[in-house]
Amino acid sequence: MRRVFIAGVGATRVDEHWDKSLRDLMRESSLKAIQDSGLSKKDIEAIYVGNMSSGFLQGQEHLGSLLATWIGVPGVAAAKVEAACASGGAALHQAYLAVRSGVYDCVLVVGVEKMTDAYTGDVTDALVMAEDQEYVAFTGLSFVALNAFVYRYYMKKYGVRQEDIAYFAVHDHKYAVNNPLAQYPRPITLDEVMKSPLVADPIHLLESAPIGDGSAALVLCSEEKLKALGKDVHLEIAGSAVATDVFSLHERADPTTLLATVKAARKAFSMASIEPKDVDVLEVHDAFTVLGVIHLEDMGFAKKGEGWRLLKEGQLEKDGDLPTNTMGGLKARGHPVGATGIYQVYEITLQLRGEAGKNQVPDPEVGVAQNVGGVGGTVAVHVVRRVR
Amino acid sequence: MRRVFIAGVGATRVDEHWDKSLRDLMRESSLKAIQDSGLSKKDIEAIYVGNMSSGFLQGQEHLGSLLATWIGVPGVAAAKVEAACASGGAALHQAYLAVRSGVYDCVLVVGVEKMTDAYTGDVTDALVMAEDQEYVAFTGLSFVALNAFVYRYYMKKYGVRQEDIAYFAVHDHKYAVNNPLAQYPRPITLDEVMKSPLVADPIHLLESAPIGDGSAALVLCSEEKLKALGKDVHLEIAGSAVATDVFSLHERADPTTLLATVKAARKAFSMASIEPKDVDVLEVHDAFTVLGVIHLEDMGFAKKGEGWRLLKEGQLEKDGDLPTNTMGGLKARGHPVGATGIYQVYEITLQLRGEAGKNQVPDPEVGVAQNVGGVGGTVAVHVVRRVR
Repeated sequence: MRRVFIAGVGATRVDEHWDKSLRDLMRESSLKAIQDSGLSKKDIEAIYVGNMSSGFLQGQEHLGSLLATWIGVPGVAAAKVEAACASGGAALHQAYLAVRSGVYDCVLVVGVEKMTDAYTGDVTDALVMAEDQEYVAFTGLSFVALNAFVYRYYMKKYGVRQEDIAYFAVHDHKYAVNNPLAQYPRPITLDEVMKSPLVADPIHLLESAPIGDGSAALVLCSEEKLKALGKDVHLEIAGSAVATDVFSLHERADPTTLLATVKAARKAFSMASIEPKDVDVLEVHDAFTVLGVIHLEDMGFAKKGEGWRLLKEGQLEKDGDLPTNTMGGLKARGHPVGATGIYQVYEITLQLRGEAGKNQVPDPEVGVAQNVGGVGGTVAVHVVRRVR
Repeated sequence: MRRVFIAGVGATRVDEHWDKSLRDLMRESSLKAIQDSGLSKKDIEAIYVGNMSSGFLQGQEHLGSLLATWIGVPGVAAAKVEAACASGGAALHQAYLAVRSGVYDCVLVVGVEKMTDAYTGDVTDALVMAEDQEYVAFTGLSFVALNAFVYRYYMKKYGVRQEDIAYFAVHDHKYAVNNPLAQYPRPITLDEVMKSPLVADPIHLLESAPIGDGSAALVLCSEEKLKALGKDVHLEIAGSAVATDVFSLHERADPTTLLATVKAARKAFSMASIEPKDVDVLEVHDAFTVLGVIHLEDMGFAKKGEGWRLLKEGQLEKDGDLPTNTMGGLKARGHPVGATGIYQVYEITLQLRGEAGKNQVPDPEVGVAQNVGGVGGTVAVHVVRRVR
């Protein structure tokens, strides 16, 4: 079995990038990642681009080949990988398999989304394509509305107060303040969250991940190749798993649990031979506050209905038992859909390298990133381990 | 190194399927492939969907997870893979890597495109997204027009008569007659081709692959798994490669050569330890007649400017030296974009199994499929070998 390592990382700031195109963003993160790896461009043998909506929002498909040319490596293998909001995590999984297979030694995986473009329609229309167009989306239901159902049902089922869930947004913003790439690097209060306008009852504006543009990239290499190049072998992708769930929310037995998270986490943890207690730093896909809480439960960090306690008890703080979303999470770092899964691993990498600045977690060894597509139709979980 | 085998295949007819949706098509081909493999659905561990334009044409993304549910295997890993018209071949490459990596034993790879839907725009707008939207497509140039440039340039450079190229369409239609899944199973004459309307000068209507809907699927398994299940181990994917070229046609040194074909073919042939002379049955991506001829040259079967001779000399016939597009090719079997790369391997499989009916090539052992994205921005080449 071949081991796969993260050799370099790069990312753009998440923002409304009115002066940069989709290709500018993915080129910027890619070149940063290659530079960070210390490798030469000619070492890159394949490119995976995680992206959801470039056809609809930019009128541009074929991003793998496009990027290969625009970073100056035409000829390499390339493809775009799409799994709705889990496109980044799914692309990373393919990149991992590509190196592990022995066919490639070094590959570039890039997540990118430019949500402020509107080639054929707006971003709300693009996002709901994660759900079933023929049976759900055609009704006019938005992606936020679907999550509002989950939120309402969760509060009723477990008797949890909204304030205890909504605090997830406050947590995220506190950490975004020290993340130079965050879209909203400013603190917010629980009172502000609860008084912000409702987008889809009970979800407030300040409980929702924002719309933004951004790209993040990783260079993955085999152990053999890194050693042959005289590079350090530090950060191993010790677990990589993707799982699906019944596609439409309304057909699931329990909408307060994302079975795809349960499965992907179990598999990734098993590959890495870790248990939840071994996780030193965590990134969860909190597109809406309630999802952050649900993910903590589904990954085995809390019992169902009790995820909010970790938040309340301070366990998710950088010096807590389970430092979570320490660079701002989806709410405050931002959520450029297809890029998010790669931003998460970018941030885990900074933490494991000790380069997270004021948000640094004390000496972490194991980081986990959980990336969700749709309302849990696909989930990718990655475990990164620092090898001494 | 783990070996990867084709365990089962399935496909729908290529047609204007007004009574079937995208999901109906991909479900049909998937269930046929699983049934053909003799495996149980529970043996499928991951799904790859090759598709280009479901977001733009159907308002539906997240096809991997959608299909997992609609064939009754929610839970498995899944993703969509996109590389324009090479989406099928690129998805097959990922499926191959997935099994070869050792992480998965059996995976399903499905190509699908429903080109007759028009959720946000028509199929001409969708297809040109394979080229550069910001620098090329915005001018209004269509995908056919780009290929018309190649055609005109090729005839001028090599002094080849159009009739000698256009005959590729006649060849394809001759074989489609005996393919029950072909979109246009009827013979045409060279005279009809040359007198058909010009779509983009010099490309005639009958030199162009049609617009159609369809889906094809393959089940890939490891040797170990097939043996454990007591199944025959017959058809090995002996070579699998994807390569890119400079993204935009106008920036290439020589638009009459697709460097991505040259690279992908060399790599796939090298993996399989074969040379061009070892190929017993071939599928080339003749979206337009001139491309069929160019591909023969770029893969090493003829010198540049002389591909048409193979056609003229009868070498591409089922009993010739290089039986090519023996089920109708893109022109007459049809070209449902993201499905084409899988249809090609479906047809190679029928040939290697001796199940090609009236189009059967005498006792073939090695089949090759070449699938092109854009005007050669991405090319996938697969070598399938019958193991005795």
